[in-house]
Amino acid sequence: MLKEFSNKVQSLQPSAIREILKFTADPTVISFAAGNPAPEAFPTDVIAKLSADIFAEEPINALQYSITEGYPKLREWLRDDLTKKGMFKDGDNIVITSGAQQAIETTAKILCNEGDVIICEDPAFIGSLNAFRSYGVKLVGVPMDSDGMIMDELEAALKANPTTKFIYTIPNFQNPTGKTTTLERRKQMLELAKKYGVYIVEDNPYGALRFSGEDVTNIKELDDSKHVLYCGSFSKVLAPGLRVGYLLGDAEVIAKATVGLQTSTVHTNIWAQMLTYRFLTTVDFDAHLAKLRDIYRNKCKLMLDGLKAELPDFIELTSPEGGLFIWGTLPEKYNMNEFCTEVVHRKVALVPGNAFSADESAVSHSFRMNFSTPTDEQIVKGVQILGQAAREILK
Amino acid sequence: MLKEFSNKVQSLQPSAIREILKFTADPTVISFAAGNPAPEAFPTDVIAKLSADIFAEEPINALQYSITEGYPKLREWLRDDLTKKGMFKDGDNIVITSGAQQAIETTAKILCNEGDVIICEDPAFIGSLNAFRSYGVKLVGVPMDSDGMIMDELEAALKANPTTKFIYTIPNFQNPTGKTTTLERRKQMLELAKKYGVYIVEDNPYGALRFSGEDVTNIKELDDSKHVLYCGSFSKVLAPGLRVGYLLGDAEVIAKATVGLQTSTVHTNIWAQMLTYRFLTTVDFDAHLAKLRDIYRNKCKLMLDGLKAELPDFIELTSPEGGLFIWGTLPEKYNMNEFCTEVVHRKVALVPGNAFSADESAVSHSFRMNFSTPTDEQIVKGVQILGQAAREILK
Repeated sequence: MLKEFSNKVQSLQPSAIREILKFTADPTVISFAAGNPAPEAFPTDVIAKLSADIFAEEPINALQYSITEGYPKLREWLRDDLTKKGMFKDGDNIVITSGAQQAIETTAKILCNEGDVIICEDPAFIGSLNAFRSYGVKLVGVPMDSDGMIMDELEAALKANPTTKFIYTIPNFQNPTGKTTTLERRKQMLELAKKYGVYIVEDNPYGALRFSGEDVTNIKELDDSKHVLYCGSFSKVLAPGLRVGYLLGDAEVIAKATVGLQTSTVHTNIWAQMLTYRFLTTVDFDAHLAKLRDIYRNKCKLMLDGLKAELPDFIELTSPEGGLFIWGTLPEKYNMNEFCTEVVHRKVALVPGNAFSADESAVSHSFRMNFSTPTDEQIVKGVQILGQAAREILK
Repeated sequence: MLKEFSNKVQSLQPSAIREILKFTADPTVISFAAGNPAPEAFPTDVIAKLSADIFAEEPINALQYSITEGYPKLREWLRDDLTKKGMFKDGDNIVITSGAQQAIETTAKILCNEGDVIICEDPAFIGSLNAFRSYGVKLVGVPMDSDGMIMDELEAALKANPTTKFIYTIPNFQNPTGKTTTLERRKQMLELAKKYGVYIVEDNPYGALRFSGEDVTNIKELDDSKHVLYCGSFSKVLAPGLRVGYLLGDAEVIAKATVGLQTSTVHTNIWAQMLTYRFLTTVDFDAHLAKLRDIYRNKCKLMLDGLKAELPDFIELTSPEGGLFIWGTLPEKYNMNEFCTEVVHRKVALVPGNAFSADESAVSHSFRMNFSTPTDEQIVKGVQILGQAAREILK
């Protein structure tokens, strides 16, 4: 029968965020709904120069087929850097992917049969949830408090779901909540993964964007037992349009992931990999990151200070120490979807929290706000509109 | 259990070609085993200039997140071009992919459950076969004669396999055989697809590289019933390292494919899409293609004339009218794998034909030779070595 899609994708829907972003095609709408890096964070002049260098020095290498594993020099740089950081262990390997999203998708493809379980933070990043759904996986969400996943609930979920293949987590400045998992919780999560014989897929797109507080050790660094598959990305620290990310973990798993990637994209755009390598080895990367952190620290402060001044006290707000998102939660008596709908009619776009739920039909009282994409002027104006809407609607 | 991979990828192996290509790391080995475009076919100066233009004129667009559907200007160009060619029909749509390989993979993902059947030419392109295998699909190969798939065998396969989701074909200068499916067979294949209610996935990476004979109408053009999903590629006509291809077909299928791609790569490297668009609209694309055809016509003739002069008459050779490959077949009394092994020890790498079999354990007497990647000198020398080996071994 034509038009009969596979079971695994039949009910797969476009990301709810994309539907909201349609409103933002209207240039008068202020979007707090996206997740794009700030355009001023792109080192455009340096990239233009490095790209010209590539075409002057090795144009054929930048245009010919390459190997699935990734550009060797970039993989070597990553291996050295991640070894220094205690992340790359003996017996590990790295494969370059077309964004961390492809790394995440590939873990589901190679590890999960239809009906298997992936345990995730609830709420969690919609792109990953949809990638998991696209393999017919059952998602089991574990609620979070301000320290991350609640460990008793995680253990209960692991006990109740013996076909669990991995725990998916964004421990730093999580998307959508902005929450950071504490060191204690990371250690506990790793112990539970070992106890129940499951992987942890640690997704860390924002880790380098900490603008306050102290770094918390990555779970990959804590792990000496090959239980962690680590997804890294250059989207937030260089540019997302390049689509360069990577998967780090047990060499046997990386080998299988590589075979999977060979049947998909064959390899990641090679110019983008060469450009990333040249960027990492040409510029002062730490200084570049410091500049990004300054941008996001200022934008986050601007939005958060504004929200605290404008919104009623009963709206809970997270205070992220990095990343791109603030998470707001209404008291249960209010209807979050009605609030978001009213607000978008007033020309500010938020993302309703249920977009990030493991169970999309669950009721959510939360909404996600992004501070990296809007200009400072848009942040100030958007926050004012939000405040006025809240005062008028939430009575 | 850690390291227990999903059923669908458990037995998936790296492409056999990659194993052979390891021999070619030895610079003294002449490789007829690859499938890379000729480096001299890359318009490197034009690409360097267009890339510089992009960074001078719209750097942010080239670096920021983009939409999964693809760069709108490139999609519009393709829609117009494919409409002119009678390929884009009412109710069709296009999505840009990271190479045609990703388009092929995505058709399997969205259409096939594990255990479903895909019918393919036997032999067929290993990259596609492995993509299908990676979704736990059962491959049913249909033998070919010089006109393409044998239609009685195709109908028998369709009858015997009611869970068939699509017929996969490379009708022009097929990889690996170099054979072109006749118009009559294309029409028959489409009628059979309609009769049995299955799609045809028409993969056409080499169609623009016809260097002799007359173009044969694409199956997509023959189809007015939404039975054909067409995979296009810029890898062989611009540069494969860019990873830009597309899927064309019924808008409902493209919508589902787009949702699938959103969970994988999010979008194809946007610089590469912008570059492709600028190339198509800046240069004389027909003149560019004419130049490529000249290169491949000459290389094919050099190899084929040499093979005919050097090899014993009992080795059958195809005479491709385009594309990148010649297919050789030994009489049944000879062991093809032994021949390929002996030849590689004499420093010429071929691809054993069983790499392209739907059933990898089936005996093959054929081998694939590529004329696009080696230099003219390598072609001449490699053919001499092949001839001497054949005379000495095949007695």
